[in-house]
Amino acid sequence: MQAFERKVRESFGRQAFMATIGAQMTAVGVGSVEIRISFNSSLTQQNSFIHAGVITSILDSACGYAALSVAPEEAEVLSVEFKVNLLAPAVGESFIARAQVKRAGRTLTVCTADAFALNQGSEKLVATMQATIMNMVPRE
Amino acid sequence: MQAFERKVRESFGRQAFMATIGAQMTAVGVGSVEIRISFNSSLTQQNSFIHAGVITSILDSACGYAALSVAPEEAEVLSVEFKVNLLAPAVGESFIARAQVKRAGRTLTVCTADAFALNQGSEKLVATMQATIMNMVPRE
Amino acid sequence: MQAFERKVRESFGRQAFMATIGAQMTAVGVGSVEIRISFNSSLTQQNSFIHAGVITSILDSACGYAALSVAPEEAEVLSVEFKVNLLAPAVGESFIARAQVKRAGRTLTVCTADAFALNQGSEKLVATMQATIMNMVPRE
Amino acid sequence: MQAFERKVRESFGRQAFMATIGAQMTAVGVGSVEIRISFNSSLTQQNSFIHAGVITSILDSACGYAALSVAPEEAEVLSVEFKVNLLAPAVGESFIARAQVKRAGRTLTVCTADAFALNQGSEKLVATMQATIMNMVPRE
Repeated sequence: MQAFERKVRESFGRQAFMATIGAQMTAVGVGSVEIRISFNSSLTQQNSFIHAGVITSILDSACGYAALSVAPEEAEVLSVEFKVNLLAPAVGESFIARAQVKRAGRTLTVCTADAFALNQGSEKLVATMQATIMNMVPRE
Repeated sequence: MQAFERKVRESFGRQAFMATIGAQMTAVGVGSVEIRISFNSSLTQQNSFIHAGVITSILDSACGYAALSVAPEEAEVLSVEFKVNLLAPAVGESFIARAQVKRAGRTLTVCTADAFALNQGSEKLVATMQATIMNMVPRE
Repeated sequence: MQAFERKVRESFGRQAFMATIGAQMTAVGVGSVEIRISFNSSLTQQNSFIHAGVITSILDSACGYAALSVAPEEAEVLSVEFKVNLLAPAVGESFIARAQVKRAGRTLTVCTADAFALNQGSEKLVATMQATIMNMVPRE
Repeated sequence: MQAFERKVRESFGRQAFMATIGAQMTAVGVGSVEIRISFNSSLTQQNSFIHAGVITSILDSACGYAALSVAPEEAEVLSVEFKVNLLAPAVGESFIARAQVKRAGRTLTVCTADAFALNQGSEKLVATMQATIMNMVPRE
């Protein structure tokens, strides 16, 4: 495992909330991350769909870690802001967030991410995010 | 309790995810809603702050229910999209999301919401949302 | 020319502001539109870059017309909201906005668009938009 | 005139695009700015409303200069990203963008702004922006 992947997975492992919702990091590349959750009735809104906040949570973590995967070695990352469009009800057996870096700058990185619902092997796009992430470098 | 408040509280009561994160609806007005959570280590990110997705979840529910409080009696609501700026680390004993309707249209309602961290009685702004919500009216 | 392209180009031709900034529609497909402007010192901000509002204007028109290209024949479109990330200074000889439909719904369509600066034949990404557009169908 | 106002007005005076659309800076405070334009048929979209890009342009400049008004003396500012909701058609005799700082940080400042249409003395809210602005400090 390369250094960037170790750093990303180690940080993800410390996100207690990702464990709370049953999220798993299923892929890490240079500038791309995939996070999955299974349907669980504890994560639903009033119509038994997955709550938009849960879908946003895996999109946000995926974007943050995609940014971290290309950040300077000593940097941590922080979400500055994001925007999510909810495109279809989050109905399915499981859900995947796939994030990729759109532009990595010295201070700020912009990522996009899509969330898909999985049903019997087919994927349906349910949400999309555009996010700004900041590199936090410890000061000497 | 007036009809709009009963409708809002009843729907909120069916959001299993709000119970999962310990959220409570602490105020409902015409066009405004307040939702609170207490700090819980199961909701944290890698630095032991509350995960941005959790703060977003209570902001999103607060915006949706502020919109529902002014929607036609037969309508339900659906989040179309939202944008969140994270302004300070979510560190505190508890967290409040306060949403208000900015403009209510026939089909779409726009809300804004702020999230505050509470520490020993003082409030600190930690995030702000701008959201678009759609009225869903059953077709005859 | 197909009906959707005629409808898109006819509406674009009525946008006086696009003429004011010298914008041209350089491509129209099913669900995609390209709009270009040349550098002009009347369009700049304080550092002689193209003003973010100008780049946003061609991104917005490109998104709206990409949505219109797949809308029902009798529908017009209206921008509901958009979010823009400015990724690099808008420095160049000319600028292209390329929009594509991400998801077309009955009422709402979501588009994404990128803006590029052109210099001596090479393209550089300078901004990216995520937009929500509404179909407006005349009532009978 | 205080130093912050002089700095803001001097920079605004160098935005050629603001002159192109006839924009005037009508108020500058600590953390707040107001910019106005008059209706002009050269600024319209296909239905003779003011183009969303024009409204966004004055909102963006207002947010940027609200941020600049509270930035360190040696800093310039740069728009990182913004999100606009279009709330009503931009129909009127003139249009005002009013921006205020929501939170000023060392590197990033978040502003909100509203745009109003003026008709015979009455104001109508037509758009609202949430924006992130970056302080650019020259390196020694």
